[in-house]
Amino acid sequence: MIIDCHGHYTTAPAELEAWRKRQIAALDDPSKAPRREDLVIGDDAIRASLEGAQLKMQRERGTDLTIFSPRASFMAHHIGNEATSREWSEVCNDLVHRVCQLYPDNFIGVCQLPQSPGVPPTNCIPELERCIGELGFVGCNLNPDPSGGYWKEPPLTDRWWYPLYEKMVELEVPAMVHVSTSCNPCFHATGAHYINADTTAFMQFLTSDLFKDFPTLRFIIPHGGGAVPYHWGRYRGIAQDMKRPPLDEHLLGNVFFDTCVYHYPGIELLTKVIPVDNVLFASEMVGAVRGIDPDTGHHYDDTRRYVDQVGALSEQDRQKIFEGNARRVFPRLGMRSAREVNRAGAGA
Amino acid sequence: MIIDCHGHYTTAPAELEAWRKRQIAALDDPSKAPRREDLVIGDDAIRASLEGAQLKMQRERGTDLTIFSPRASFMAHHIGNEATSREWSEVCNDLVHRVCQLYPDNFIGVCQLPQSPGVPPTNCIPELERCIGELGFVGCNLNPDPSGGYWKEPPLTDRWWYPLYEKMVELEVPAMVHVSTSCNPCFHATGAHYINADTTAFMQFLTSDLFKDFPTLRFIIPHGGGAVPYHWGRYRGIAQDMKRPPLDEHLLGNVFFDTCVYHYPGIELLTKVIPVDNVLFASEMVGAVRGIDPDTGHHYDDTRRYVDQVGALSEQDRQKIFEGNARRVFPRLGMRSAREVNRAGAGA
Repeated sequence: MIIDCHGHYTTAPAELEAWRKRQIAALDDPSKAPRREDLVIGDDAIRASLEGAQLKMQRERGTDLTIFSPRASFMAHHIGNEATSREWSEVCNDLVHRVCQLYPDNFIGVCQLPQSPGVPPTNCIPELERCIGELGFVGCNLNPDPSGGYWKEPPLTDRWWYPLYEKMVELEVPAMVHVSTSCNPCFHATGAHYINADTTAFMQFLTSDLFKDFPTLRFIIPHGGGAVPYHWGRYRGIAQDMKRPPLDEHLLGNVFFDTCVYHYPGIELLTKVIPVDNVLFASEMVGAVRGIDPDTGHHYDDTRRYVDQVGALSEQDRQKIFEGNARRVFPRLGMRSAREVNRAGAGA
Repeated sequence: MIIDCHGHYTTAPAELEAWRKRQIAALDDPSKAPRREDLVIGDDAIRASLEGAQLKMQRERGTDLTIFSPRASFMAHHIGNEATSREWSEVCNDLVHRVCQLYPDNFIGVCQLPQSPGVPPTNCIPELERCIGELGFVGCNLNPDPSGGYWKEPPLTDRWWYPLYEKMVELEVPAMVHVSTSCNPCFHATGAHYINADTTAFMQFLTSDLFKDFPTLRFIIPHGGGAVPYHWGRYRGIAQDMKRPPLDEHLLGNVFFDTCVYHYPGIELLTKVIPVDNVLFASEMVGAVRGIDPDTGHHYDDTRRYVDQVGALSEQDRQKIFEGNARRVFPRLGMRSAREVNRAGAGA
């Protein structure tokens, strides 16, 4: 079985974006505010949005289950205030929940958090509890920079974030560290801001004792860990110069990397330098890179092919990357079937 | 011959830092301002600062010439105003000039620019002209973020920077894109800010037509290009989705990567995915990572060993990486000896 731990609902029906535009327009003129019930999307529209996209690719690429969350670039936590973000998060999470209920074997849910710049992460706990407890979700996406490219929040290792971490530990859910769009003209969103955030988060973890305080807290750093595996010697050396413990002892019980690296040499390096127990299969399809590589004739983001090509991996290693590690890092999935997980959210 | 294109004077005598501290203290109380002539460093102190460090490592590692610039983390362009930065840059560049005159076979100079947040880069031209024309330097370090981690300047592809680029083209000098320290608590300087800046700059170049406007402008992206080679498939795919030309046509006549990647698998990947003509040998010794890797028994930053180990490189490839490319990218060095280059700055 192959679990793709990183997919966003990038193909949601256009009604969702239209509703969001009305919500944004109402920031200046509350009389324009859309109601929840104004967002009407039929089951057939949801099916149509997935059948030719994520589901088709699952079939073509031979992957089975996608851990699925709202579109990252649309989270846009910088827009409006806490109430704006809460309403938008609930709408987006509800839509992912419907996807999971329509295709309970193909998707399980991860939630967007209603973060807002300067607002304590504590305030995200009710939505996290709702998504985990009622919708049957198994994780969350945590944005280290709700300002959208201006990095005004404290580092992820600051006590500012601790109440949320306490709840994550209690609920047994990991977070994928994932920024949203960039408002800073210096940073292209998917080409710079995403990758920089991954690198930044890792370095925050490295310089802290966060995992002494939370031994069972788990983070997935997406996009192959940003720059980190490529510079693994740099990070080992910096940790050593700073008298930190070796990285495997210090971080690798808590920090995991996905395989969203869109060429074979990158996946080869990732699996060579990062212990196999810390690598989770992912493609982020349909996502940042949608084209076909003319050098291979395959989609850049068909990462299964790259993992399959790595001759140094044993079958047991590959099983860990494709399935076993995800079941361990997402304890609410654990050894259960996706259908069973989704049944827990069926009443919502 | 082996040319290391990326070294900073990190071991400058303590008097330099003391002078800088007085300069900073005087921002609040101008009566404390140090005079230039208060900075007294004898030739013997300069020799002592290098003999046991950069020169020792050149000898031990078998490298010959270091392209040498002021300490990057001390540039701190965010401190004070334009006048502060100008005076500090002149002091630092003059000290590098003395290094080059004392060891004309071992070092040639690259200058720090007197950037200051919000101040047009045009204002850096006099110091660039002084360093190239009078001190015999061959390039400059350009900071894309003089704010020190808040990224308030326009992207490097904005016309804001064009007057400086016109002068660089006229003088035939490349720039290494290099940030300084980070004031933003989210970004560790050498572990996050440096690497993020490299990735950011590349993506700015990718999304622009800068090199149509400046066909002979050249940038070196240090630290192995940040995250870029590891994600080369992502960048190729993003460029393709954006209908940009293939990266080799679009950028690789103008953008180069150094080899400051501190483990063998990183260098192996770099040399596998980036054309050999675009890779310049560098170590950034004595720099961000100073320890010895217990796995190899050698310094992490002894990058010559990694390049030597790559079996896929021909002797001709290795000659390009070690020497030929640097002579091409730094036309003021060209085929001349370092001593000859430094002679041009001997009268200053």
